[in-house]
Amino acid sequence: MKSFNEITQLVTSELEQISWSKEPRGLYEPIGYVLSLGGKRIRPALALMACNLYSEDVQPAIQPALGLEIFHNFTLLHDDIMDKADVRRGQQTVHKKWDDNTAILSGDVMQIASYQFIAKTPIKHLKPVLDLFSQTAAEICEGQQYDVDFEQRDVVKGEEYLEMIRLKTAVLLGCALKTGAWIGGAGEEDAQNLYDFGINIGLAFQLKDDLLDVYGDEATFGKKIGGDILCNKKTYLLIHALELATGNDAEELQKWLKINDPLQENDKIKSVTSLYNKLGVKAICEDKMQFFYSKAIANLEKVSVLENNKQELRNLAEKLMSRQD
Amino acid sequence: MKSFNEITQLVTSELEQISWSKEPRGLYEPIGYVLSLGGKRIRPALALMACNLYSEDVQPAIQPALGLEIFHNFTLLHDDIMDKADVRRGQQTVHKKWDDNTAILSGDVMQIASYQFIAKTPIKHLKPVLDLFSQTAAEICEGQQYDVDFEQRDVVKGEEYLEMIRLKTAVLLGCALKTGAWIGGAGEEDAQNLYDFGINIGLAFQLKDDLLDVYGDEATFGKKIGGDILCNKKTYLLIHALELATGNDAEELQKWLKINDPLQENDKIKSVTSLYNKLGVKAICEDKMQFFYSKAIANLEKVSVLENNKQELRNLAEKLMSRQD
Repeated sequence: MKSFNEITQLVTSELEQISWSKEPRGLYEPIGYVLSLGGKRIRPALALMACNLYSEDVQPAIQPALGLEIFHNFTLLHDDIMDKADVRRGQQTVHKKWDDNTAILSGDVMQIASYQFIAKTPIKHLKPVLDLFSQTAAEICEGQQYDVDFEQRDVVKGEEYLEMIRLKTAVLLGCALKTGAWIGGAGEEDAQNLYDFGINIGLAFQLKDDLLDVYGDEATFGKKIGGDILCNKKTYLLIHALELATGNDAEELQKWLKINDPLQENDKIKSVTSLYNKLGVKAICEDKMQFFYSKAIANLEKVSVLENNKQELRNLAEKLMSRQD
Repeated sequence: MKSFNEITQLVTSELEQISWSKEPRGLYEPIGYVLSLGGKRIRPALALMACNLYSEDVQPAIQPALGLEIFHNFTLLHDDIMDKADVRRGQQTVHKKWDDNTAILSGDVMQIASYQFIAKTPIKHLKPVLDLFSQTAAEICEGQQYDVDFEQRDVVKGEEYLEMIRLKTAVLLGCALKTGAWIGGAGEEDAQNLYDFGINIGLAFQLKDDLLDVYGDEATFGKKIGGDILCNKKTYLLIHALELATGNDAEELQKWLKINDPLQENDKIKSVTSLYNKLGVKAICEDKMQFFYSKAIANLEKVSVLENNKQELRNLAEKLMSRQD
């Protein structure tokens, strides 16, 4: 069994070996750039860890695992155009460093590249891996569309939000685990339990993100606290605050949602956070995160490999929940 | 053997049976819209015709053939954003009817959908079909990038232009023919000859497009004559005019390239066309088109099926060369 660190090192080294110095440079250079910005590499790591549960040799899963990481970065590239985001991981986004057209076209070829890596799945597993990947990729687009739609709506329900983040974030973790498990030789029941483990970890992971954005420590979080509050992002916290606030609280919350004045940014963050605390939505979000985390651990328990061999996945899940960045 | 008309009817009816009425509507509706705008459906037709050379039953090639058409329309959708084109086939483009973000995201899921149809290739042929499709898709993006790059450059060589249109247009015709041939059961040599036939027809097809834009009849062409001239598009005609013009002709051509005045549009089209005629670039373009057309026919001759069975492909090639729209 490889440790998480060994797996991550393997992924990083394999990613670095891919050459994007191809012609036309204007098309391929942004791909190398966006992949060089870093990231946790969780998706390929999950694929290789799941494979490693069933096979000492993770080699056959490496290329499809890289495909998942390339696809994930492609979605960030196109999302950043749509969100008009100028910064990603402390660096300029592609559409900012180059332009929108470059970001559209490089993203398109990046999606094709992700399929080229997925297609390197051993032929025996190619068809199910390819179908799951396409289904997952489409679901991620659906999640992004719901995310956009929700920003236009006045009321979004908690359940709708959870379905949106399941599509936008969780399914790719499930897909990574199932893909790795299949390639390693897992049976269908184990592969499905690992998929469900990924879904629940993904949901808990995104709720943790919502919490960190408000309650994180700026120094360790690596980005400005309160970003979601400033842009009125309908996170799990805001959705519940809107649901629970009555009387003066409701009025105050609505007042702040209408304020978009750079000079009042700190006040807005402070006041909305106070309302969140008063309304108890931090605890609601933490409870829901804990709920999905427990479900994930239950999914993992049902996987029929030696308990000891699951320790790295359990550690990773625990680490993602207690993370400060 | 099915006639071209029978094949086209089959493609149209199969395309119409795909339902895009899925949630979220904002994501899938534009796909149904763009596919409903029509088009010649040449790519899926070529795939089925190539399949039909080797097999009476074209059923196994239908889903991948639809994947090629969906992919082609996806490229138009994203190209129209990049070109800021408001009209396609007489109707509003997706980014105009909806907005840029919708066009980006619907395009992304459309590309995924094309892979989902390609993945329905009979398992025996899946791996080579998938790899050829991905390679072709990447080449089309490369062609689009060169097209964009060339617009920024002062000098583009004829050979560079031909390589650009090979990537942007011809490879998908070659891919369609080879895919259909493989699925029908063709040997590698025939599949390659059909691929080359597609490349050469594609090159001739694009040169015909360049000619029609200047010398077509507005009523039958279906769009305004001279559009390429007005936007200084570096077509095969302009590239050669720039190469051949000397003295006063060169000065006049440069003068018109700098003029971008709506009131002088008709004068610009008339004058540049006169220069093309004087410099003989119409004949150069026609000769080159004929050159590729002859190469295509030679490729088709090498295909080892009954001569009689090639007649529909030969007719189609001839029709594409003599078309007025």
